[in-house]
Amino acid sequence: MPANKVPDIVVGRLPLYLRALSQMARDGKEITSSQELGGRLGISSAQIRKDLSQFGEFGKQGTGYNINFLMEQLKRILKVDRVWDIVLVGAGDLGTAVANYRGFVDRGFRITAIYDNDPAKAGQPVGQFLIRGTGNLTEEIRTQKIKVAMLAVPASEAQEVSEKLVKAGIEAIMCYAPTSLFVPDNVRVQYIDPVLHLQHMTYYLPE
Amino acid sequence: MPANKVPDIVVGRLPLYLRALSQMARDGKEITSSQELGGRLGISSAQIRKDLSQFGEFGKQGTGYNINFLMEQLKRILKVDRVWDIVLVGAGDLGTAVANYRGFVDRGFRITAIYDNDPAKAGQPVGQFLIRGTGNLTEEIRTQKIKVAMLAVPASEAQEVSEKLVKAGIEAIMCYAPTSLFVPDNVRVQYIDPVLHLQHMTYYLPE
Repeated sequence: MPANKVPDIVVGRLPLYLRALSQMARDGKEITSSQELGGRLGISSAQIRKDLSQFGEFGKQGTGYNINFLMEQLKRILKVDRVWDIVLVGAGDLGTAVANYRGFVDRGFRITAIYDNDPAKAGQPVGQFLIRGTGNLTEEIRTQKIKVAMLAVPASEAQEVSEKLVKAGIEAIMCYAPTSLFVPDNVRVQYIDPVLHLQHMTYYLPE
Repeated sequence: MPANKVPDIVVGRLPLYLRALSQMARDGKEITSSQELGGRLGISSAQIRKDLSQFGEFGKQGTGYNINFLMEQLKRILKVDRVWDIVLVGAGDLGTAVANYRGFVDRGFRITAIYDNDPAKAGQPVGQFLIRGTGNLTEEIRTQKIKVAMLAVPASEAQEVSEKLVKAGIEAIMCYAPTSLFVPDNVRVQYIDPVLHLQHMTYYLPE
């Protein structure tokens, strides 16, 4: 598989395709086309065909895509044909909302622990979890060989926490803090910052 | 200004530049370079210079960028040299976390109301707000000429709510629900779905 050759922007669209296909499958559909998929996502059908062609032949000219088959292929490519354990650091409002979110597990992820550095919070329940102190965070994550973390701490603490996570062997960090992390090249970071999205849209609004 | 000619992907990077520059300014820096900015963001300096050149001349060869000046220009381009009123729909865990987030106002946004369709929640406090019922949502938003909304409702309700928002004159929707909205062409939608980001990263993780 030409894993390292596919542009990152193409990789980033695959989860969108998978999500739209899952929605179609839930609606009882069995077959779709790049036109229909593109219509749902605001992406051209040519772009979708080109993106998918980087990974193989998933549909036949004129007959479209078998939705379940294409979903299975995308899950395999994105490595979510398994379930990844995640640790969540930060048990404030946002961390609590993330911990209670039930949309992870059927899309390849399972939160296994939630940490907070506030000693007063240690042992308190959040959803189905008891908050853990960060004292043994590095050792606990390393022992469990967890590779994925979500960071819901204030921006001022995010860098320090990310360094502990990297030391623990974490290779993928989803960062909710509105800041840029400095991490080694082998560690991926994705950011969720609602203001970036809002500012992206106001550009287009009339004065 | 060539507002409609700039590729959307370039527009999407401007908020990132603005955020990194704001961080530098808070750290007391006055001048930066495309190299330094790129180093913080994992974007090449050539890309940054090319992106910025679409909007004008913001730095001099060899002397770099004046951080405050470039921030002012980016704020003007992104139209966040003002404060936009936002309504938030959905007062569950996530809506509550968003309502309590204090990082909006100094970046161009102010939540002015939070709505929930659960009658039991109407009148309850969330942060500094009292939750409003959705009965008069369309009229209230239209009267106040609000253009920006955030959607923190379940996926199953998102489309219906978005149609009310569009009817109310909303032109920019930030959607936290893991679904794709169908909206008219004049309405922009940005999605925040943590699973999309997680799946984007697992692609790169070792088996």
